[in-house]
Amino acid sequence: MSEEAQGTEVVAKAVAAERLTFFADAVIAIAITLLALELPVPVGATNRELLHSVGEHRHEYLAFLISFLVIGAHWTGHHRVFRWVESLGGRLGLLSLGWLFLLVITPYATRVLNGDGAFEARFVFYAAVQAATGGVFALMVHQIRKHRLYREGTPETMFAHARAATLSLSAGFLVSIPVAFVTHWSYVCWMAVPWLGNFTSRLMNRRRLRAAAVSP
Amino acid sequence: MSEEAQGTEVVAKAVAAERLTFFADAVIAIAITLLALELPVPVGATNRELLHSVGEHRHEYLAFLISFLVIGAHWTGHHRVFRWVESLGGRLGLLSLGWLFLLVITPYATRVLNGDGAFEARFVFYAAVQAATGGVFALMVHQIRKHRLYREGTPETMFAHARAATLSLSAGFLVSIPVAFVTHWSYVCWMAVPWLGNFTSRLMNRRRLRAAAVSP
Amino acid sequence: MSEEAQGTEVVAKAVAAERLTFFADAVIAIAITLLALELPVPVGATNRELLHSVGEHRHEYLAFLISFLVIGAHWTGHHRVFRWVESLGGRLGLLSLGWLFLLVITPYATRVLNGDGAFEARFVFYAAVQAATGGVFALMVHQIRKHRLYREGTPETMFAHARAATLSLSAGFLVSIPVAFVTHWSYVCWMAVPWLGNFTSRLMNRRRLRAAAVSP
Amino acid sequence: MSEEAQGTEVVAKAVAAERLTFFADAVIAIAITLLALELPVPVGATNRELLHSVGEHRHEYLAFLISFLVIGAHWTGHHRVFRWVESLGGRLGLLSLGWLFLLVITPYATRVLNGDGAFEARFVFYAAVQAATGGVFALMVHQIRKHRLYREGTPETMFAHARAATLSLSAGFLVSIPVAFVTHWSYVCWMAVPWLGNFTSRLMNRRRLRAAAVSP
Repeated sequence: MSEEAQGTEVVAKAVAAERLTFFADAVIAIAITLLALELPVPVGATNRELLHSVGEHRHEYLAFLISFLVIGAHWTGHHRVFRWVESLGGRLGLLSLGWLFLLVITPYATRVLNGDGAFEARFVFYAAVQAATGGVFALMVHQIRKHRLYREGTPETMFAHARAATLSLSAGFLVSIPVAFVTHWSYVCWMAVPWLGNFTSRLMNRRRLRAAAVSP
Repeated sequence: MSEEAQGTEVVAKAVAAERLTFFADAVIAIAITLLALELPVPVGATNRELLHSVGEHRHEYLAFLISFLVIGAHWTGHHRVFRWVESLGGRLGLLSLGWLFLLVITPYATRVLNGDGAFEARFVFYAAVQAATGGVFALMVHQIRKHRLYREGTPETMFAHARAATLSLSAGFLVSIPVAFVTHWSYVCWMAVPWLGNFTSRLMNRRRLRAAAVSP
Repeated sequence: MSEEAQGTEVVAKAVAAERLTFFADAVIAIAITLLALELPVPVGATNRELLHSVGEHRHEYLAFLISFLVIGAHWTGHHRVFRWVESLGGRLGLLSLGWLFLLVITPYATRVLNGDGAFEARFVFYAAVQAATGGVFALMVHQIRKHRLYREGTPETMFAHARAATLSLSAGFLVSIPVAFVTHWSYVCWMAVPWLGNFTSRLMNRRRLRAAAVSP
Repeated sequence: MSEEAQGTEVVAKAVAAERLTFFADAVIAIAITLLALELPVPVGATNRELLHSVGEHRHEYLAFLISFLVIGAHWTGHHRVFRWVESLGGRLGLLSLGWLFLLVITPYATRVLNGDGAFEARFVFYAAVQAATGGVFALMVHQIRKHRLYREGTPETMFAHARAATLSLSAGFLVSIPVAFVTHWSYVCWMAVPWLGNFTSRLMNRRRLRAAAVSP
């Protein structure tokens, strides 16, 4: 390949990486906005009746809030990693489409979660979609590292942090699945997700400092 | 950190800031377009009947118009500030997601406002969402200034104007809340919002000129 | 203002112009896609019944097609002009929001057009929205020219062509309004829109050639 | 034309090409996300009933999956070609709008496919939309090549591969049409699409190697 063709290929790959990020943003923006389309409008002729109606729909409001936070967390993870990505390669494109597929069905999974009865089946479906989203993202991060798709000068710690955040998220949702067969409080596992991520990050920082103290 | 790694970090942060803006645009574009999805289609076999049907839906049309203007105002404020932003840091990312959350529920708040009965509760909910949106945006502007996330050469006055515009918007909606318990004309407070912003801007310009005249 | 601050302002305005274009694209993309959400699914147990059902919905399919073409024409006009725009100023931002407002209600106007009875009122509403969209765009082009928001080296003819295309579009829709009170074939005026634009463009080219032949 | 005006035109055309790509991304992102809006939520008080309900909707879930993959394939094809495009010209703009029209109606075609009865008519409509999408894309690739809208240094093989992928996709859908009049297993033809594309690519690579071996 001539030098010019090589330069063109670098540009084309950078354009392709940017466009993939852009496409992901558009899909996630729509998924996160569509969530609110399903919110039940409370009814009531008086303020008291209206508040009562709000109380009756509290599970739907909670599910909306959870899904907003979950999609927001997936987007934040993507946003933290992809600012360092400058090329496309390996299976990153294919995995990204799979990742978007899982995000596209999250508003649907929220509707399933909101249905009456069959708590376990609904809960497991929702948690499995979220755990899978985290898992696919971990594979994406792996591809970025393996095929060196990141900018020169990207800090090594970025990958470790991304892995920790993603795996905590997946772990929180995975653990909640068996818990759901025992108690409806399995939701609490989901709330542990941000705390888990934070804890893992701190643990990693401590280890790194120790390693740095040992190595000359 | 090596010089190269520092350069890469500047680029990565610029990319991240740009992408956050882009994501906000996509979310707002969808929220503003979804508003129209709820507009009632008038019925009527004759032109006269159709116009009568339009008249009966006038509150829904008015609520749509208000929400379009309100979301348009939030977007314009964001657009005026973020053209100067070139990096990400502090809590700007997190606050931006909170700000988008409030914009995402604005079409829903419009549907709530359109419901029958319980005027005060519906009105307060809508006004509170808008006042909160303004409040969160003020915090975002504060973070941009505190962590110096703006381009070198950004005019000082930009921040003062952004603060004034945002606080006027929030004030207009906050004041309307107690008024709603007295009269349904509390909507008029909302119409004062653009006038308030304009007035505050002029006041600020006058003060600055005076200060400039006093200081040597 | 220092030289550095001036440079920063040029960059900020370019970013703002780009973002306005981007926002317009996102809004139009959603409006054009939402059109299809309303398309009636034909029913029928046999192929013959299904085709019959398609025939019964032919007006809705035609209205969808017209609206897709109309929004496509508005987007194409915007796309042809804004590739030359590199700054923001005057009332371009405000007019752009007004223009987007009209595009956002076009899917709604399509639903109104599809209703039964009261042909004149429905037709006039749709045609008025489209004529107004063209009119607001003509004002936008005027602002771009007046405040010199275009790149240096932009061909003079661009503005003349944009004006001609926009005014032909508006004229086609405006003329159809009185015709609607006489015959339901007023739709035909809309089909003349592309032909009108083409004809005006040719006329303009001929005049320019003559003027060039006369001037030394 | 002066040298400056020529430079401005190159920039304007690059901006226009980028914006067209962006607009396509936004439209496709919305189309792919809207697909999930139609997914039926299963009902059931117990886990067993819920799973049974899922089973009853299996055709709708399958149709959603197929449409996601099909739109994903169209986007991937576009993404692979347009990273090399740096200008606009010929009929590329017009063809792109036509291509987007077909993508916009794909979620609708999915709903049609999901209807009861009249299998052949529904199947043919869906397959024809997809075959046409591939056909229009082949014309777009032809325009890019004919009017030299690609970056200098773009590999010749890119066009051949794009043509092969697109034509395999169209062929798979076209062949399925007559098959649908014989058996409902005509869906299987669609599954052959990725395999066909892969096979053609390999065949092309082999031929090229042979040609390279023959030519000095």
